[in-house]
Amino acid sequence: MSSGFGIDHLPYGVFSVAGGPRRVGVRYGNGVLDLHAATGRPEFDQPSLNAFLALGPEVWRQTREEVAGLVEAADLVPLADAVLHLPVEVADYVDFYASLDHASNVGRIFRPDGEALTPNWRHLPIGYHGRAGTVVVSGTPVTRPSGQRKAPDETAPTYGPSRRLDIEAELGFVVGAPSELGSAVPFAGLADHVFGVTGLNDWSARDIQAWEYVPLGPFLGKSFATSISPWVTPLAALDAAWVDLPEQDPVPLPYLGPGATRGLDIAVQIELNGEVVSRPPYRTMYWSPAQMLAHLTVNGASLRTGDLFASGTISGPEPGQRGSFLELSWGGKEPFTTGDGTSHTFLEDGDEVVIRYSAPATGGGRIAMGEVAGRVERAR
Amino acid sequence: MSSGFGIDHLPYGVFSVAGGPRRVGVRYGNGVLDLHAATGRPEFDQPSLNAFLALGPEVWRQTREEVAGLVEAADLVPLADAVLHLPVEVADYVDFYASLDHASNVGRIFRPDGEALTPNWRHLPIGYHGRAGTVVVSGTPVTRPSGQRKAPDETAPTYGPSRRLDIEAELGFVVGAPSELGSAVPFAGLADHVFGVTGLNDWSARDIQAWEYVPLGPFLGKSFATSISPWVTPLAALDAAWVDLPEQDPVPLPYLGPGATRGLDIAVQIELNGEVVSRPPYRTMYWSPAQMLAHLTVNGASLRTGDLFASGTISGPEPGQRGSFLELSWGGKEPFTTGDGTSHTFLEDGDEVVIRYSAPATGGGRIAMGEVAGRVERAR
Repeated sequence: MSSGFGIDHLPYGVFSVAGGPRRVGVRYGNGVLDLHAATGRPEFDQPSLNAFLALGPEVWRQTREEVAGLVEAADLVPLADAVLHLPVEVADYVDFYASLDHASNVGRIFRPDGEALTPNWRHLPIGYHGRAGTVVVSGTPVTRPSGQRKAPDETAPTYGPSRRLDIEAELGFVVGAPSELGSAVPFAGLADHVFGVTGLNDWSARDIQAWEYVPLGPFLGKSFATSISPWVTPLAALDAAWVDLPEQDPVPLPYLGPGATRGLDIAVQIELNGEVVSRPPYRTMYWSPAQMLAHLTVNGASLRTGDLFASGTISGPEPGQRGSFLELSWGGKEPFTTGDGTSHTFLEDGDEVVIRYSAPATGGGRIAMGEVAGRVERAR
Repeated sequence: MSSGFGIDHLPYGVFSVAGGPRRVGVRYGNGVLDLHAATGRPEFDQPSLNAFLALGPEVWRQTREEVAGLVEAADLVPLADAVLHLPVEVADYVDFYASLDHASNVGRIFRPDGEALTPNWRHLPIGYHGRAGTVVVSGTPVTRPSGQRKAPDETAPTYGPSRRLDIEAELGFVVGAPSELGSAVPFAGLADHVFGVTGLNDWSARDIQAWEYVPLGPFLGKSFATSISPWVTPLAALDAAWVDLPEQDPVPLPYLGPGATRGLDIAVQIELNGEVVSRPPYRTMYWSPAQMLAHLTVNGASLRTGDLFASGTISGPEPGQRGSFLELSWGGKEPFTTGDGTSHTFLEDGDEVVIRYSAPATGGGRIAMGEVAGRVERAR
């Protein structure tokens, strides 16, 4: 199937039709299978995937098999008739910083005379908690945030709309099966707990972030909105996408599974107002999904159904592979030009960003994961 | 009533009896009023306060009046028969850093040759998101976390149990009424959104935190456990506790309501293995509850029912008023001795910490807010 949503994909989402209730569905081509109607199972008569996710990997596997047998003959809801909703009730949201190229670029932009990476960067996947309550589904407009900004040459902060509104193209991982408080999830436990992946745009107000983030990290520069795709691609649909990641130096501590760092060969494409501005490759990330999960829980922090952890900005080694406008415009100092001849640094009101993701399919060809779109609205 | 849980207090919690269902209750003296049994209202036949909190301030006010008329004649569940549970299903958890004395102490301990405060500290209430899924009720044992630690004189990090396990005595604020994404909650909106307060212990692994926190803030050094009291004291019970906070210099930006910084005269007492080690005063905090709420939402971040935001460590200006062992032992360099003659720096396995809170009552005397207790268990 040419759409990228064929039998080897079958991602899960939440939809409604004509103001009806929200239900769990699976996308197949340009249609949606109503899973409650098709199976009668109560976990699909829900406004989020959480009840299904909580059932664990054996049920996920059986359901995927069952759905594959149903979709061809089923009466699908036309995608054009479906309203797509946030697929997951997000429990905790954690954002990592797992791209060496991104972290190096940011370090060079902000600390041109210092070391690009902090001393801890190559020893652990740095992460922090973001705001779960402002994770929104693709298509939700993003209001330009206001707050305190202070440029280095200003003597005091001022209040006003962000002047350096940015995106971060990321991949999100959705936790299905919980873990016990006080116990670490081992490196090998990824598929026991993670159900699937979504595209993710971690909208960022760089001026607010720069003023607030020392010493306790990003807060209001990030918490106004994080967009995810309406479709969650099961890990099972990505069997053909696993690749070896670049070598890690120094070798990380044993709990991070050194020597077995497998990543996903997911191609990312960032469009600004319909023009492609970057093509970041997820396969060049430094820290792997399994390492992020092992680190997140090494202190005994428990997982809940609906937890979401993200990769951090995906940037590759080439200039055309940068996952944020901060990097594409090198801190705003080097405007870049899109195919329509317009020049850009950070986001203007009315700008629309679409991030697309694709991966090798198990049956050959590629699957097209759910896109993440958002338009910037002027500050209130 | 001498217990501090008289008619002018009436805090809310969640309890069960003999393995029965969790229900909402109000504490009166040494008993618990079963609110579902007493009123028949469905929002009390719930395993958390959230359904009640979502109903908003007018319902909170009416319910408080109704309960005051019921408790004296009602058949209360003896407190000794009730198992107390986490009162709130926590949505997002935000931790601030609002004590000038605490921030100054930490700055002096970690950066003895630099400025104690970062340049932003007096301009905004610094905060960050913590892990909502590991907020636990008082009495829950706390397993010593393991993770990466690196002392300044070590060349590489090692994995192992934290050697600098600490507490942070804080006050938590529970959000009841939500707000709209994209809209800021004004400074004057505290009582429209915040239902009440709890005691809070933000357990901290200082060695894990010190190695991980640059540049994205605390993560695993905090995310293993945060304890709150089983009883949520309504703001309405604290009418007599409001006081002017110390002057703020420089005057903050208008959205932070300069000149109207009102805080709460809540007395905190920290006990280690039954010995009082500190008495932090909440009335000396720099940033007020209303300022924390206004700042949290100034970028349009929405509030959800069950959001919890905390003050950060409460430390007063005197050595006997410090709210963490980091400060009480001055970075571990100056052990302190408790009344039983034992010497302490950070927490040992088996140590039990109890934090108690009290405030002036509207009818004179004091109310005793729910305590926050926890015992340290050895690392797994």
